Amino acid sequence: MGNPEYVYSSTNNVDSKHRVEIPPLQPFVKSLKNMLKETFFPDDPLRQFKNQPPRRKFILGLQYLFPILEWGPRYSFKFFKSDLIAGITIASLAIPQGISYAKLANLPPILGLYSSFVPPLIYAIMGSSRDLAVGTVAVGSLLIGSMLSNEVNANENPKLYLHLAFTATFFAGLLQAALGIFRLGFIVDFLSHATIVGFMGGAATVVCLQQLKGILGLDHFTHATDVVSVMRSVFTQTHQWRWESAVLGCCFLFYLLLARYFSKKKPKLFWISAMAPLTSVVLGSLLVYLTHAERHGVEAIGYLKKGINPPSIMDLQFGSQYLTTTIKTGIVTGIIGLAEGIAVGRSFAMYKNYQIDGNKEMIAFGMMNIVGSCTSCYLTAGPFSRSAVNFNAGCKTAISNIVMAFAVMITLLFLTPLFHYTPLVVLSSIIIAAMLGLIDYEAAIHLWHIDKFDFVVCISAYVGVVFGNIEIGLLMAVGLSVLRVLLFVARPRTIVLGNIPNSKIYRNVDQYPNANNVPGVLILEIDAPIYFANASYLRERISRWINDEEDKLKSSGETSLQYVILDMSAVGNIDTSGISMLDEVEKITERRGLKLVLANPGAEVMKKMNKSKFLEKIGQEWIFLTVGEAVGTCNYMLHTFKPKLAADESNV
Amino acid sequence: MGNPEYVYSSTNNVDSKHRVEIPPLQPFVKSLKNMLKETFFPDDPLRQFKNQPPRRKFILGLQYLFPILEWGPRYSFKFFKSDLIAGITIASLAIPQGISYAKLANLPPILGLYSSFVPPLIYAIMGSSRDLAVGTVAVGSLLIGSMLSNEVNANENPKLYLHLAFTATFFAGLLQAALGIFRLGFIVDFLSHATIVGFMGGAATVVCLQQLKGILGLDHFTHATDVVSVMRSVFTQTHQWRWESAVLGCCFLFYLLLARYFSKKKPKLFWISAMAPLTSVVLGSLLVYLTHAERHGVEAIGYLKKGINPPSIMDLQFGSQYLTTTIKTGIVTGIIGLAEGIAVGRSFAMYKNYQIDGNKEMIAFGMMNIVGSCTSCYLTAGPFSRSAVNFNAGCKTAISNIVMAFAVMITLLFLTPLFHYTPLVVLSSIIIAAMLGLIDYEAAIHLWHIDKFDFVVCISAYVGVVFGNIEIGLLMAVGLSVLRVLLFVARPRTIVLGNIPNSKIYRNVDQYPNANNVPGVLILEIDAPIYFANASYLRERISRWINDEEDKLKSSGETSLQYVILDMSAVGNIDTSGISMLDEVEKITERRGLKLVLANPGAEVMKKMNKSKFLEKIGQEWIFLTVGEAVGTCNYMLHTFKPKLAADESNV
Repeated sequence: MGNPEYVYSSTNNVDSKHRVEIPPLQPFVKSLKNMLKETFFPDDPLRQFKNQPPRRKFILGLQYLFPILEWGPRYSFKFFKSDLIAGITIASLAIPQGISYAKLANLPPILGLYSSFVPPLIYAIMGSSRDLAVGTVAVGSLLIGSMLSNEVNANENPKLYLHLAFTATFFAGLLQAALGIFRLGFIVDFLSHATIVGFMGGAATVVCLQQLKGILGLDHFTHATDVVSVMRSVFTQTHQWRWESAVLGCCFLFYLLLARYFSKKKPKLFWISAMAPLTSVVLGSLLVYLTHAERHGVEAIGYLKKGINPPSIMDLQFGSQYLTTTIKTGIVTGIIGLAEGIAVGRSFAMYKNYQIDGNKEMIAFGMMNIVGSCTSCYLTAGPFSRSAVNFNAGCKTAISNIVMAFAVMITLLFLTPLFHYTPLVVLSSIIIAAMLGLIDYEAAIHLWHIDKFDFVVCISAYVGVVFGNIEIGLLMAVGLSVLRVLLFVARPRTIVLGNIPNSKIYRNVDQYPNANNVPGVLILEIDAPIYFANASYLRERISRWINDEEDKLKSSGETSLQYVILDMSAVGNIDTSGISMLDEVEKITERRGLKLVLANPGAEVMKKMNKSKFLEKIGQEWIFLTVGEAVGTCNYMLHTFKPKLAADESNV
Repeated sequence: MGNPEYVYSSTNNVDSKHRVEIPPLQPFVKSLKNMLKETFFPDDPLRQFKNQPPRRKFILGLQYLFPILEWGPRYSFKFFKSDLIAGITIASLAIPQGISYAKLANLPPILGLYSSFVPPLIYAIMGSSRDLAVGTVAVGSLLIGSMLSNEVNANENPKLYLHLAFTATFFAGLLQAALGIFRLGFIVDFLSHATIVGFMGGAATVVCLQQLKGILGLDHFTHATDVVSVMRSVFTQTHQWRWESAVLGCCFLFYLLLARYFSKKKPKLFWISAMAPLTSVVLGSLLVYLTHAERHGVEAIGYLKKGINPPSIMDLQFGSQYLTTTIKTGIVTGIIGLAEGIAVGRSFAMYKNYQIDGNKEMIAFGMMNIVGSCTSCYLTAGPFSRSAVNFNAGCKTAISNIVMAFAVMITLLFLTPLFHYTPLVVLSSIIIAAMLGLIDYEAAIHLWHIDKFDFVVCISAYVGVVFGNIEIGLLMAVGLSVLRVLLFVARPRTIVLGNIPNSKIYRNVDQYPNANNVPGVLILEIDAPIYFANASYLRERISRWINDEEDKLKSSGETSLQYVILDMSAVGNIDTSGISMLDEVEKITERRGLKLVLANPGAEVMKKMNKSKFLEKIGQEWIFLTVGEAVGTCNYMLHTFKPKLAADESNV
C-alpha cells in the first residue's frame, strides 16, 4: 500500500485533504493552572475582581463573603412588606415542625425552637439564596437520632446525648464550611438525583412509620427503624393501642392533608396549608386543656423552658470516647443537609432566574451549623417544605428568615407555656403530613420511563432505607451512584458507522438504518474518553468488531477487510493507558494485514499521541480531519491498488 | 424568528437538510440483555458455542474450563524439549526465590518450596497463558507478612500465624475465583498502570530496605516498613553490623547484577541470569560449609523438613477472632496478585500474538490459591521475573510449569538437606537483585513526559509505600485512581468550535488556530457523556461561555449573539440529570433571548430526549445532523430576518 500523501500530490482526484493539527504546546505551569481553575473554579468567582482598584476589591470581597452587604443597600420597604408576611408564615410552620423534628432526633423539644432562631440569622447574612427558609430537617434529625442512639441512650443519659448532638452538629458545620472553602462542592454532585429521590422517599417512609408510636399512643417501641421491626412492634401490642390518641391523630392528619390538597389546587391559598400546622397545634392544645385528655392516654409536650438559646460552646465533646461517632454523624448529616439544601436553593433560583453559588452556600451552611452548635442548636439546613412555603408566601430576600427568627425569639421569650398542653399526637400528624410530600413517587415513575438504571438506583436506595436502616440505604445509594459512574467509564460504547446516502456524512448504522457500509472498510466510533479504566475493554471490543466484520464478509463472500477507521471525535481525553491501548490495537490490526486509520482526534489526543511517538508510528498521513476524508483515501487506495474492487465503488 | 423547516421548503437556498433519527425502540428486555452482555461478556466467550451439537458443546465447555484439553492433544515432542529446558531453568530460580520470599512473609522457608509445587500444576491445567511461570510473589509475601504481623507475632506464635496465612490465601483464592466466575474482572482495570508502577516500585524499595537486616547480619530490626524507621534501626546499631555478612552479601549482589547485565545485553545468554541465583545458593552454601561461617555471624537456613506438601485443609481458621484480618489480607493480596499476574500474562500474550481471557485467568488463579491453601501453600501468582525467564528460555506451553513442579518435588523429596548451610545473606542478595528490576524509573519518566497527572499518581503511590506503609500506599494509589476517574467524569471539557476555512467543517479553535468564529453564533462541543456527576458543572460552564462570548461581542461592538449550537457528537450517553441540565440550559438561553440548537445527538441521547419530551420542547427542526447544517440554518435565519447582518456574511 502506498503513502496517501504521495497519492494526493500526484493524482488530485480526491477532495483536498485537511490537516489534523497538533495544538500549540502550552507550558506545563499554564496548563496546570488551567486544569486547577476548571476543577475548582468552574464558575470563575474572581471574574468581578478583575481590573478593579484595591478598595473596590476589598468591598467586593466582603460582599462575596456576606451577600447581605450587596443586596442590603438596595432593600426597600416594599420588599420588607413581602418578607414580613413570608417570615410570619414560615414561623407559624417552623414552631410546630421544630418541636416535632427535635423529638425525631430524641432531643428536648425546645431545641427545635432554638434551632429556628440563631441559624436563620447567620444564613440571612451569608447565604446567597433568596428563597431558602432555614431550619431543622426531618431526615437529618432522624439520622442524628439513629446514629447517636447506637452509642448513647437518650433516655438514660440525656445530657451526654445532647452534648454529642451539639458536637456532631459542629463537625457537620466544619465539614460543610471546609468543602465550600476548598471548593470541593462537586462532591455533592456525586449524589445523583435518582439516589436522592429514593433515599428521601425511604427516609420519609421510615419517619412516618416511627410516628405510629405517637399516633397509637404506645409506651414501648422498637429502636430499629426498618419496616419489619416496626410492624412487629406495632402488631404485637395491639392491646396497648389508645383509641383516643389514634382518633385525634387521624383527624388532624386528615385536616392537614386536606389543607395541602386545597393549597395545591389553588396556589393562592398557600396560607391555608402553611397555617394548618399551627392551627392544629392551637386546636389540639385547646382540646387537651379543656378535656384533660392528657389523663386519658393523650400525651402532651409538657414544660418548656422560657428564654432564648443558652450558650453551648462548653458542651462540645472533643476528647471523649465518642469522638469517632460524632465525626461520622457529622459527616453523614452534613453531606445530606448540603445535598438537600443546595438542591432546594438551586431549584427556586432557577425559577426566579438568579444564580446561587454552591461553594458560597456551603460556607453559609457550615457557619450556620458551627455557630448553631455553640448556641444550643442542632443540625439545620434548608428543608424543602418550609422553603416552598416561603416561596409561595412571596418572600423577596433572606430577610424573611430574620423575621422568622424574631417570631421564634418572641415565642421563646414569652409563649413557651402555651405549648404545655400540645398533644404529641398532633406533632406526629404534622410530621406525617410533611413526610408524605417527600415520597416523590412521580419522580420514580419518570425515572422508570427515561432511564431504567436510574430507577433501579432509586428503588435500591428506598428499599435499603426501609428494609435495612437509614445508613444501609445511604451506603447503597452512594455505592450504586459511584458504581454507575465507574460502569459508565468502564464500558463506553463503540459504534459502527455507515455512509448517509448522498453525503459525505458517516453515522451510527443502528440509529440511521439507511446508512450504508463501505466495502473493505470498518468504521468504528469510540464514544467516550479513553482511560485506564476502559482501555482493556476497548481493545477487546475493537478486536471483536474486527472479528465480527471479517466473519460477516467471509460468509457473504464479499471483499475482504482492508482498513479500520477509528472515529476519535468523541474521545475527549486519553491517558497513558489509552495510548498503550492504541498502540496494541495498531499491532493487532497490522498482524491481521489491516491498516489502522484515525479520524478527527481532538487536541488532547493529538498532543499525547505526538508526545508518545504514536503519531510517528501510525504515520501522520493516516490521520484525517473527517471520516469522509479518511474513507475517501481508503477507497482511492483500494481502487488504485486493487482494481478488482472498482465494481463496488458504486455503493460508497 | 421563523421555523427553519418552513424556510427550507419555501426557499431551498441552503443545502438539503438531513434528519436526525430517533433510533427504533428496543424492548426493555432486549436492551437490558445487551447492556448486561456488554458489561459482563464484552469478549463474547460463548461465541464458539453457537450452532454446535450438544456433545460438541460439552467438550467445548470442558476445554473452556481446562484449556489443557484444548492444546494438550496437539502437544508434540518438539514442544516438550523447549518446555523441559524452560521448566528446569525456572525451577533453578524458583527454589532460592521461594525460600527467600517465604522469609519475607515471616513464614517457614519450606513453604516457598511447597508453593512452587502444587499451584503450578493447577495453573497448567486451568490457565490460558503459555508463558506465565507460577510462584510466590515478593509484594504479596511482604503484604501477608505486614498485615498478619499486626495481629499475631510470627515468632511467638508461629503455628497460629501459619494457619492465618493459609486462611488468607484461601480467601484470596475465593475472591479471585468469584471475580472470574461473576465476570467482574474489570475491577482490576481500576488499578491504573501508573498506580501499579508506583506501588510496585515502592514495594520493591521497601523489600530491599528490609534486606538490610540480612545483609548486615542484624539480630534486632524494626517491624515498621517505612524508610525512616528502617534507617533509624540500621544506623542506631552500627556496632552490631557484621562485616563478614555484609561483604558476602555485596559480593553476591554484585555477581547477580552483573549476570543480569550480561543477559540484558545478549538475550541469548538469558541462562546466565536465570541460573545465577541457584549458583549463588550453591556457592554460598559451599562457602559456609567449608569455612563454618555460621559461627562467625553468617546465619544459615538450617534444617528443612524432607517430603512433599502436607495437607493443611484442617488448619484453615474460619471461626477465630482473626477472621476479619484474614479476609482483609486475602482481599488485598488477591487483588494485587491478580493485577500483577494478569498484566504479566497479557504482555507476553501480546508479544506472541495470542489472546488470554482475563476472567478465565482469574478462575485459574483462584483455584490455584484455594487448592494451595489446602496443601500448605501460601499466596501464589505470576511473578514477572520468573515469567520473563520462562519466556526467554523458550517455553512453548504451560508444561514448563509442570516440569518446574516436578523439579521442585524432587528437591522436596531428596535435596532439602543441601540447603542446611545456605546463608540467609545470599537469599537477601537474591531478593534485592530481583526487586531492583521492579523499580521501573523509566516508566515513571515516560509518564512525566506524556501525562503529568499520571506521574503524580505514580509518585504518590511510591511515596505512600516508602514513607508510610504498604497499605497506605495501596490506599493512596487506589484512592487517587478512582478520584482521577471521578474527576475526569466530573469535569469534562467544553470546546468552542470555529469554521475551518473553505469547508463546512467546524473544529476546536484552540487546536486549529485558523478556524473562524461565526458571527452571532456560539458553537460549543461537549466532550463527554452527560451524567449526574457533571451536569451542574456543564450547566455553569455553558452559562459562562455564553457570558464570555457576550462580553467579548459587547466590547468589540460586533453583532450580538443569537444562537447557541451544542455539538453533541461526543455525548455518548446521558442520564436523567443530564436531560434536566439540557432543560435548564434551554431555559437560560431562552431568557437571554438566544435560541438553543443541537447538532448530531447520538442514538442514546435522541432516545432519552424523545422519552422525556425535551425533543418537543426544543423543536425537532432545531436539531441538525451536522454542525455545518446547523450553522447554515442559523446564518440563513440571521440573514433573512436581520438584513443588517448581511455584511458579516463574508466572514463565515
